[in-house]
Amino acid sequence: MKLEQATGGEVTRRELLFGAGKCALGAAGFTALASVVPGMVSNAHALGGTTEKWPWPYQKLDPATTAEIAYKEWYRVFCGAAVISAVFGQLREKVGDPYKSFPIDAFIFLEGGTSGWGTICGANAGANIVTNLIIGPRISGTDDGMLMGSEIMQWYSTTALPRYVPKEPKIKADLPQTVSNSPLCHLSVGKWMKAANKELASPERKDRCARLTADVTAQLVTHLNDWKDGKYKTKGIIPAAGYGIQTQHNCTECHGSNVPSPPKAKKT
Amino acid sequence: MKLEQATGGEVTRRELLFGAGKCALGAAGFTALASVVPGMVSNAHALGGTTEKWPWPYQKLDPATTAEIAYKEWYRVFCGAAVISAVFGQLREKVGDPYKSFPIDAFIFLEGGTSGWGTICGANAGANIVTNLIIGPRISGTDDGMLMGSEIMQWYSTTALPRYVPKEPKIKADLPQTVSNSPLCHLSVGKWMKAANKELASPERKDRCARLTADVTAQLVTHLNDWKDGKYKTKGIIPAAGYGIQTQHNCTECHGSNVPSPPKAKKT
Repeated sequence: MKLEQATGGEVTRRELLFGAGKCALGAAGFTALASVVPGMVSNAHALGGTTEKWPWPYQKLDPATTAEIAYKEWYRVFCGAAVISAVFGQLREKVGDPYKSFPIDAFIFLEGGTSGWGTICGANAGANIVTNLIIGPRISGTDDGMLMGSEIMQWYSTTALPRYVPKEPKIKADLPQTVSNSPLCHLSVGKWMKAANKELASPERKDRCARLTADVTAQLVTHLNDWKDGKYKTKGIIPAAGYGIQTQHNCTECHGSNVPSPPKAKKT
Repeated sequence: MKLEQATGGEVTRRELLFGAGKCALGAAGFTALASVVPGMVSNAHALGGTTEKWPWPYQKLDPATTAEIAYKEWYRVFCGAAVISAVFGQLREKVGDPYKSFPIDAFIFLEGGTSGWGTICGANAGANIVTNLIIGPRISGTDDGMLMGSEIMQWYSTTALPRYVPKEPKIKADLPQTVSNSPLCHLSVGKWMKAANKELASPERKDRCARLTADVTAQLVTHLNDWKDGKYKTKGIIPAAGYGIQTQHNCTECHGSNVPSPPKAKKT
């Protein structure tokens, strides 16, 4: 779908539901979307890459099989690269290029919210990379890649995780599930560590992140299969719309009751 | 350098300086690093990619020229892809592959802190992608790619930005500089908008982000040139070390005075 559609009724309702009662909406409202998504300049850069043709060829994958690969790959390359590897590893075999030429293992650095900084959970980052590489970036004429990535982050933030049960678990443990209310590593891991009373270095915390990585991968492949069948209707949103700033929607969790208002658009 | 060295004296001092007086250090202390960086499994995945040989060939670039390209590219592909495009676009010409086969434009989605969610600033994400693609991921035998990315995030978080003055500015404006104290888009953009009293959709906010993207790119290329000359000594850190969780170091900005302590490592 095109982004213009994404500002329509359904998305607006979801967005308001998601953030309802938590934040004062920025006065700039949905018009702020125009600032995040200006008209794309059509001239591609002069030295266009050989893999910059979208969509990339995709063959449907089995979500459960892919999830188990992701679970195992976490122990080799951690969350972000494990998501990419689980999907692209199979597509290297089924399709070949452009998947063979994509340097999956470079994305180990997505671990720990990018090099350990606790920003975006690597599983979310990896999922966004996969959706935008396969479906294509906005400049290629569709917004579904970005919106599918956004939808996964929304699902991640509101779902009790991990729920994946490995076929070959690294440890025998009944792990608690927690809702992150955020796409960030720091909040997602921190809330789980508190609920489980397990430290960062514990085998349980590691296996929790491996299982969560499998969950995100299964969700991703389910969406991609629907998209391949022409059945995918994005529920993704651009969170900046409606808030006047790029943001999560649970403002009070960091800001408390004193949620600042972004500078307002001038009436013209 | 190898990561073992990164836990030594110099890095520890920097880390404590950076976070001094702001947070209670997690009791797990520096031993937590072992949880983030377990011994890497050496077997690469079976279908090894054609571009997964590191380091990628690099030729030194002019920081000022590259910064101006990044500034202009922001208006085509936004922060994250602009950083990648400014560096890889020139290397496509000077070197060819593997840069030609890397799908730069897919990374437009890094805009607005990944699909508008306000997480990691796309300029930081793009810089980490470049350092890890050129120098290589930890699994390739060096930690410099990740640590250079981490160093750039540290610099970004503590430097008054933007400071770049475009050669061909899109708008004539004297933009204020702000310190983000965070690698996150939401905090970086929000603090600037407040200081400038400019809304998200304003030409000034857009040009601020374009100039900041140029700043990050110049810093990145300066480090890469030093690395090429064998002169790069990382000042990057793994922030999880010392805090017992993956995190920024300005805990009180979100947590207030009530900074939680992560579950502690059991004495064994």
